[in-house]
Amino acid sequence: MDKIHNFHKENKHYRVVILGAGFGGLWATKTLVRHPVDICIIDQNNYHTFFPLLYQVAAAELEPEDIAYPVRSIVRKFPNVHFLLAKVNKIDLKAQTVETDICLVSYDFLILAAGSTTHFFSIKGASEYAYPLKTLEHAVNLRNQIITCFERALYEPDEELQKSLLTFVTVGGGSTGVEFAGALAELIYGPMRRDYRNLDFKKVKIILLEAGERLLSNLPDRLGNYALERLNRMEVEVRFNSKVSEVRPDEVKLVDGSVIQAYTVVWTAGVRGEPVITNLGLPTNPSGRVAVLNTLQIPDYPNIYAIGDLAYSEEDGHPLPMVAPVAIQQGVAAGKNITRQISGKPPVPFHYSDRGIMAVIGRRAAVAYLFNRFCFTGFLAWIIWLGIHLLSLIGFRNRLLVLTNWAWDYIFYERVVCFILPAKPQLEKES
Amino acid sequence: MDKIHNFHKENKHYRVVILGAGFGGLWATKTLVRHPVDICIIDQNNYHTFFPLLYQVAAAELEPEDIAYPVRSIVRKFPNVHFLLAKVNKIDLKAQTVETDICLVSYDFLILAAGSTTHFFSIKGASEYAYPLKTLEHAVNLRNQIITCFERALYEPDEELQKSLLTFVTVGGGSTGVEFAGALAELIYGPMRRDYRNLDFKKVKIILLEAGERLLSNLPDRLGNYALERLNRMEVEVRFNSKVSEVRPDEVKLVDGSVIQAYTVVWTAGVRGEPVITNLGLPTNPSGRVAVLNTLQIPDYPNIYAIGDLAYSEEDGHPLPMVAPVAIQQGVAAGKNITRQISGKPPVPFHYSDRGIMAVIGRRAAVAYLFNRFCFTGFLAWIIWLGIHLLSLIGFRNRLLVLTNWAWDYIFYERVVCFILPAKPQLEKES
Repeated sequence: MDKIHNFHKENKHYRVVILGAGFGGLWATKTLVRHPVDICIIDQNNYHTFFPLLYQVAAAELEPEDIAYPVRSIVRKFPNVHFLLAKVNKIDLKAQTVETDICLVSYDFLILAAGSTTHFFSIKGASEYAYPLKTLEHAVNLRNQIITCFERALYEPDEELQKSLLTFVTVGGGSTGVEFAGALAELIYGPMRRDYRNLDFKKVKIILLEAGERLLSNLPDRLGNYALERLNRMEVEVRFNSKVSEVRPDEVKLVDGSVIQAYTVVWTAGVRGEPVITNLGLPTNPSGRVAVLNTLQIPDYPNIYAIGDLAYSEEDGHPLPMVAPVAIQQGVAAGKNITRQISGKPPVPFHYSDRGIMAVIGRRAAVAYLFNRFCFTGFLAWIIWLGIHLLSLIGFRNRLLVLTNWAWDYIFYERVVCFILPAKPQLEKES
Repeated sequence: MDKIHNFHKENKHYRVVILGAGFGGLWATKTLVRHPVDICIIDQNNYHTFFPLLYQVAAAELEPEDIAYPVRSIVRKFPNVHFLLAKVNKIDLKAQTVETDICLVSYDFLILAAGSTTHFFSIKGASEYAYPLKTLEHAVNLRNQIITCFERALYEPDEELQKSLLTFVTVGGGSTGVEFAGALAELIYGPMRRDYRNLDFKKVKIILLEAGERLLSNLPDRLGNYALERLNRMEVEVRFNSKVSEVRPDEVKLVDGSVIQAYTVVWTAGVRGEPVITNLGLPTNPSGRVAVLNTLQIPDYPNIYAIGDLAYSEEDGHPLPMVAPVAIQQGVAAGKNITRQISGKPPVPFHYSDRGIMAVIGRRAAVAYLFNRFCFTGFLAWIIWLGIHLLSLIGFRNRLLVLTNWAWDYIFYERVVCFILPAKPQLEKES
């Protein structure tokens, strides 16, 4: 690998390399773009994924394109922003170069915004047989799996086998787990019930496993309880104190020894920092996130920043959550600190202004905890959620299409449950 | 495989099994559904694909979902129509059963509507390295390949390698080849040029190889000449009398000995009947299509019909083209003949009423040959084409989304060139 891509045009410009085109990376770009810098965004996908709605793709509520937006169309209008579709192999902190499978890129400033991946806590079989929900590909695979299970179940004479085809286990009672379980229940008891008339839906089981005592543990009890009560009404069986010990192609085993027969186990129980970055020998916490100074810089490397899910930082004793708003605010902050450094000023500490956390439980119901003070539940919270997410979707075109899909879904309650590629069902690969 | 799925509900009903949810299969279903039959449609995809617009997905003009429609939502309202997502392994003509990877299905009447696959004429390397364009998966793989080539070329220092990354060869000057080449030229010289500012587009080459003397040989010369003149204006290089002798990962060899350096070779040169069916020992023609009687029945099997691309039949000495209108009309005819047989009447011969053939060459230009008499070219032909295809798209929702995409494309001329899954670029698999 000796191809060096020298991407900067003007000699007076500083070269800023940003790893990751997620929320953090894009907002850092936005902040830096008007300054004397040349920016190179490196990502292994050529699109930005709107993660907060990923679970809706898995539940056939949205099409993948609705939440994906090509990086090049986002940065097209900025001549000093470059995009490199590549995998990062190594970062040479001394030589200040990033080694990718395409070429070598040198930097003056580096922003680590590679995000997080699923954390299976090395539970036996989890990484092989459980379905993660962190990328667009994950979401589509999961959707294919769900539909395939129904297609198989419809013609399965063995009643036991049929039941395990129709049992869907979600591991993790955080917002992703709660939101997915709710969307899945609506998909199954709505459109699926119509599409599979000859199937006995009493055999369907949707189970949500939570290791702890309550749902949405990052929110006030009242909201967790509301979510529980909603999910129960939607025929989702929530089990607390349920730790998974092993996942197999057709069943999941719990620490208490009990076994659930199920072909579909969705894993939302944990996330860890992107391994490529955390293998750099930088100080990381147990979940593989890079510990940063309050300026978001990395200790000993004043020209390297880490932001978003990848960065571990605390505010008044509490670790910051791995959510889009944190990534966005940190992206802006890192960008500003770099411009300060360029103009000879010292970087300033980052402070997260927490506007709130929300989770949606199916149509017309959500929980919202705003400004660390106000709790909203039900339809009002859902409207707030809808508005915020719609507005924050990047790109008008996407927003238009998403709105079309949602409106359609809302008015006619029909979802296009249609295989996307890879057409090959997961089920066959696994069992 | 001893699971027999006896799908019929009422004993007085005849069991009609239809292999394939394409145009032929769906129109046959439509025709039969009100009669005393129970229908089982078997397909290996759970969606119907609107083939005439497939090339637009490959050229990033439409999203896959725009031209795919779930079979279950189409047949939902008919209680006597069943769908089986399965691969057909064998058909037992004596026992009147269809063996699939899921279960065994027995029939009173069978309609073979499995369509066609790409015919590589056993040209060396073609099936391994050339990109076919017959399924949704093909179209998405091809789109990924095209975008990946541009991403690689942008950072490729070796000028020769860069040129072969930017050379796109289409084999076959029929309507698919002409339409794809035109759409590709617009994609590349339109949105791609804006997205890859630092790339020298003089290095881009779009080549269309035709073995014969002219384009669109099934249409009057005048229209073929118009297509040629349009394509030349769009910087597509058309080469006649060019037969391919070998395809390699990075080049294509012609019979005359010349070699074209290109990482992307698209194969639209031939189609053959679906092998699963043509391996039944039924009489087939050289391109593996099942020869049918003028009633669309198969010789010696009065309860088996073959329709669409799979069926080979002639009308006044000319073989019928493998196009959607033929499949649709034959689907209706086969359906009617089965209802006649059920009510004790003899089946009647099929006659194709040829309303016309069209091909579109980029935006605002097309050729149309209507009622075997009238030739249209240019914008008027394009409007006719747009209207017909828009109206014939199955499902209002799809039509709405396709219209949105097209309108957007037409007004702003921006296409969302966005990787769809599989995210893994073909290029890496192959070179």
